[in-house]
Amino acid sequence: MNKHTISITVEDQPGVLTRVTTLFRRRGYNIESLSVGVTEDPSQARITIVVPGDDSIIEQVTKQLYKLVDVNKIVDITAEKYVERELVLIKVRADNSIRADVVQIVDIFRGRIVDIGRDTLIIEATGDEGKINAIQDSLRNFGIIELVRTGKIAMIRGNK
Amino acid sequence: MNKHTISITVEDQPGVLTRVTTLFRRRGYNIESLSVGVTEDPSQARITIVVPGDDSIIEQVTKQLYKLVDVNKIVDITAEKYVERELVLIKVRADNSIRADVVQIVDIFRGRIVDIGRDTLIIEATGDEGKINAIQDSLRNFGIIELVRTGKIAMIRGNK
Repeated sequence: MNKHTISITVEDQPGVLTRVTTLFRRRGYNIESLSVGVTEDPSQARITIVVPGDDSIIEQVTKQLYKLVDVNKIVDITAEKYVERELVLIKVRADNSIRADVVQIVDIFRGRIVDIGRDTLIIEATGDEGKINAIQDSLRNFGIIELVRTGKIAMIRGNK
Repeated sequence: MNKHTISITVEDQPGVLTRVTTLFRRRGYNIESLSVGVTEDPSQARITIVVPGDDSIIEQVTKQLYKLVDVNKIVDITAEKYVERELVLIKVRADNSIRADVVQIVDIFRGRIVDIGRDTLIIEATGDEGKINAIQDSLRNFGIIELVRTGKIAMIRGNK
């Protein structure tokens, strides 16, 4: 089954998010990732949802979504040329003896160190899903204490 | 009213997200930002929610959340020393005559250019809410065509 990344522009009103997720839920979709944030227009928010599903099913969901009050625009970004990104924060065990090794991996992935504890580091990294998985795999041997990922966001390339 | 950043670790099951957002909705909270993503344990997802609310009200919501099936852990990160980050993608108008000016701003904010169109650029940047607002303000004069932000994610500093 394909994964679809769907971008939904909504009025920034209480309850919109719940209405949107309920619609997916009722049709039995497990939302794989979800991000909600403000847009360039403060009255509008954008929900980016990643769901597995065939094209025809996604089309049906889109029609249902348009019936919701406060939903303004729905784009299946997966059908276009697009940039996708997510952000991860990873807390790893890193005492003095291995700190240099961790820093080297962070550099390779163009990540950044955003906190230094007595024997821990917090690393920030961005990328598509594959890159985030790769950095996560590379750091696993050091001991990942905590890891949090945003949902994915996506944008169509060029002028569209 | 204070803003609270709440980190909720849940079983990665269909419907959990809807149950959590419904609970906030029923109590009349407008969720300001929300991110859901996988964690270091594939069976667990982490929901980070930013909501305005007094401490006592947040405490009540926390109690309610714990009653939900599939909710494992709730932390009010705002009560701790923490790192917060969000990710933004911004598509700006940037023909040849102003491209260098845009690139300069991107460098100042340690952003990255992730797509170059005929007369557009897509910029990726990460930071706390203030920094993201600042880069957005700096680019506004060039003409923001599209902007999408992830919800916020947060992590307690140090070994905790």
